[in-house]
Formats: sequence, C-alpha cells, structure tokens
Amino acid sequence: MTMFTFKRALTIEWAQCDPAGIVYYPNYFSMFSESTIALLAAAVGFNKREMMRRYGIIGIPMLDTRAVFHASSRFGDHVIIESEVTRLGRSSFDIEHKMTKDGVLMIECSEKRVWAVQDPNDPDRIKSEAITAAVADALRQSC
Amino acid sequence: MTMFTFKRALTIEWAQCDPAGIVYYPNYFSMFSESTIALLAAAVGFNKREMMRRYGIIGIPMLDTRAVFHASSRFGDHVIIESEVTRLGRSSFDIEHKMTKDGVLMIECSEKRVWAVQDPNDPDRIKSEAITAAVADALRQSC
Amino acid sequence: MTMFTFKRALTIEWAQCDPAGIVYYPNYFSMFSESTIALLAAAVGFNKREMMRRYGIIGIPMLDTRAVFHASSRFGDHVIIESEVTRLGRSSFDIEHKMTKDGVLMIECSEKRVWAVQDPNDPDRIKSEAITAAVADALRQSC
Amino acid sequence: MTMFTFKRALTIEWAQCDPAGIVYYPNYFSMFSESTIALLAAAVGFNKREMMRRYGIIGIPMLDTRAVFHASSRFGDHVIIESEVTRLGRSSFDIEHKMTKDGVLMIECSEKRVWAVQDPNDPDRIKSEAITAAVADALRQSC
Repeated sequence: MTMFTFKRALTIEWAQCDPAGIVYYPNYFSMFSESTIALLAAAVGFNKREMMRRYGIIGIPMLDTRAVFHASSRFGDHVIIESEVTRLGRSSFDIEHKMTKDGVLMIECSEKRVWAVQDPNDPDRIKSEAITAAVADALRQSC
Repeated sequence: MTMFTFKRALTIEWAQCDPAGIVYYPNYFSMFSESTIALLAAAVGFNKREMMRRYGIIGIPMLDTRAVFHASSRFGDHVIIESEVTRLGRSSFDIEHKMTKDGVLMIECSEKRVWAVQDPNDPDRIKSEAITAAVADALRQSC
Repeated sequence: MTMFTFKRALTIEWAQCDPAGIVYYPNYFSMFSESTIALLAAAVGFNKREMMRRYGIIGIPMLDTRAVFHASSRFGDHVIIESEVTRLGRSSFDIEHKMTKDGVLMIECSEKRVWAVQDPNDPDRIKSEAITAAVADALRQSC
Repeated sequence: MTMFTFKRALTIEWAQCDPAGIVYYPNYFSMFSESTIALLAAAVGFNKREMMRRYGIIGIPMLDTRAVFHASSRFGDHVIIESEVTRLGRSSFDIEHKMTKDGVLMIECSEKRVWAVQDPNDPDRIKSEAITAAVADALRQSC
C-alpha cells in the first residue's frame, strides 16, 4: 500500500556549500527536513505552524535518521527530492527521501519522527502522543 | 583493538535551537562533523586545512551517516561528544560518536567517510584515494 | 537613474527560526545574500558558478552591510525581497534590499560588495579587480 | 565611561566557510550574536535561558546591525572577538564588536538590541520593555 508522497525541486545555494565546493552534508538534512514539513502540509492542507496551533504539538522531533550519499552536488545544481510516508505508527512515522539530479539517484535518506507535545508536568520535557487522527488519515492517502 | 578516540565538551548555542526550543537536529550533524575534523587533527597533529594542503585532498566527504536520538537538548545545555575510529579501510573509515549530558546518553551517530581528491580529468568531480599512510597510522593508535 | 532590480518571494522556514519563534537574524543576511546572487544571475543571464568560471572571480565578498529591522517574521510567513543596484563602482557595487510582508516594510538592508579574484602571488589572499564590463553593463540596465 | 566588555577566542570552523574558502559572511553575525549572549551572561552571572526564565523576556531581538569587513578569514584561523556595551537606553542597548586575527582588525560590527517580551494581547507579537534593573546595573559596570 502506498501512502502519501511529495515531490519538490530545489536549486543548491551558495550558502549550502563548503570550501570543497560541494554541499556541506548537514545541510542535506535541512533539505530533507523541509521536505517532510512540506509533505505534512500538503497532506493536511495547512502548514506546520497551523498544525502546532491546532493540534497542540511542539513539533515532530527526529528519532532516527540515516542518509546514504551516492554523489555530491554543487552550487547551482538543480535537484529533486521525492518523499514518501513508509510507515505510520501510533505516535511515530517513517519517511523515505530520494534526491535525484537529472534522473540520477544522489542521496537516500530515511527518517523516523515522533508526534510530540510538551510534558504538562515539566516545561523542559517533551513527550510523544498519538498522531492526531485527521493527520494519520491524510498520511494514509495514496497521493 | 581500540583505535583513535577524541572527546570534547560543548555548550548548546541559541542559534542551534528551533522554535520548539530544542536543537534543530541537522545541527547535531555539524557538531559531529566538527568532532570528526577535530579527531583527525588530534591524531595527525595539525588541522584539516593543513591536511588538505599536505595531502592534496579536497576533504573527507560523508558516504553514510546515521543518528539515533534518545533525548533532546536545549539552549545552554552542556554536552560531551566522544568519538572513536571504529574501522579503517583503504580509502574510507568509520567513526562513532556518542553525545552525553550529565552521563546520560543523548545521541549515537555513526559515519562512513572517504579520503577524496579532485578528479584530475574533471574539475567538477571528486574521487576516492588510499588514505595517506601517516594518517592511517595515526588513526590506528589507541589514544 | 534606476539600475537593475530583482524581486523574489519566499516562505520563512522552520530552520530559520529560533527558540523565540522568530527568524534568527543572521539568517536574514543569507536571504539577502541569495537575493544578490539571484539578481546578478538575472542580470547576466547565467548563475554565479558560471560567472566564477567565465570571469575568474572567487566570489563577490561583502565589504559593508547594514540591516534595520522594523518587524520580526515567523515560521510560515510569506515575504517578498526587492533588491536594487544603487551604485556601481569600478570594482565594487552597492545593493539595497527591502523585505515586505503583505505590503508592510519589515527589513531594510544595504550591501557593498567587491569583485574579487585570487591573488596570483598568494593562494591565501584575494584581491579586488575591475568588474567585468559585460556584468557592469548588465547591472546598469533599468529592469 | 566604559561599560561592560567581553572577550572570547574562537577558531573558524569548516562549516562556516563557503566555496570561496572564506567565512560565509552571515556566519559572522552568528559569531557576534553569540558574543553578545556571552557578554550578557558574563555580566549578570547566568545564561540567556535563565535570563528568559527569570525576566520573562522572549529574547533580545536585533533592531539594527552593521558590519564592516576589512579582511576575510579562513577555516582554521584563530580569531578574537572583543565586545563592549556602548549605550544603555531604557529598553534598548548598543554593542560594538571587533574581530582581530594576530592583532590585526578584521571586522567591526555594531548592534542595537531591544529587551523584548511577549505581547500579552497577541501571541504572535513581541514588544519592548524596560531593561530589568539588575541587568542594566550589570551592563553599566566597567569590566
């Protein structure tokens, strides 16, 4: 069963590259993270800020992420990130991202995220909670 | 056999945190990356810039990295990163990082890096090369 | 005389905001810097990477920049940056940026940049050079 | 009358540099911002997070900042930032930073910051407030 998917094109920025002339790899995680946020927004129909307001979450922190780098990208390159929900649990979900350039696979990245709220008993702690049903339903759609 | 290890203390900066009040996770990869660079510098006795100059490398690009997040950190937190070389191949090597706060394990991160030079035939390509012997020897030391 | 202008729309990203929930101000300089790079690309017809290759420059380093912040922006806000070349010297030029949200002025930023090449006598030094005539001509156009 | 001053040494990181091999200038604003936060912490005796908690501020947003760049820095360079409170108003204050390398002035930066609280009538707005007396007193000390 295929769940929600999302695709976006982006151009590598000067600021994302390092003295080796290639993308500084932590910046790829920012790109993938923005893709996850955009996928969620596309699924539910409004952005993360509105999600936080409506659902009382403080965010969707990362539990586990891995990226495998097949080729490096440079300033000015046009790349595509395709993202897909691959697992939907009670309070966590998995996303797979593939970055391609001219049809060639550059990077694969997997993420496990958690639906998180403020711990009502401790302002410095966050805790997981069941994913809001409307969001879970939206992520289950094949699209 | 234990290979080279490196430990450093750092304080979470305001700029590293997001609107949820916790570290924006791509920033952890920057912290781990700086630890790897510092480990290499400690092993060989001079910094990455000098390594690039002496050994003709353009850097040590990431091939594969994974982080598992057990707990989140906030602005002002004092954390420790312990890093260890866990595998030394011909042209690639593995590093394991552990971030702790007050003795509690916060994050585990593994990296596979490659010793990379400019492809002499293509200014836009990089290629792997055997790790310089002096560096490999230094990383093999238990320290 | 009006010189080259450029306008782009962007949405504030989660990663650009800090624990106060507003954009971490150094990130505005990245947004303005990307606008300057995009303005140049629009003026000459190809991107900065190609400019560097064709004209032998190592970049267009900043000499002086100032930003005045009238209002803060938050994650998800839609803003517009309008940029204008306001002075064109022999080897340096000035740009003015205005960021607006729903027609309200949020930030004004001015930049003085230099056309820079590698010092042929010292790999660690850069030096200014006369702006390539084709670029100067393109920036002088009212557009 | 001299007010509070603060000095710190730092080493330019790989991640702070761009494909031109020099610091990507928006990163200097992060360095200066961290110096301002460290100066405040040194003046009052505890960090910004504790300041936010005790004084109910959401931060000290930037109103106006300017940097003049005299020379560029590279990965591995050791620099010093000296920071000084140069004006203390009712709800805003000015800081001057000087970055030097081997005694040579590299960058000058000025900042005007505001003491800011959440607007109690609008969760999306922040407003200025008189600087907490204990903080103002601490910043007025010559040190």
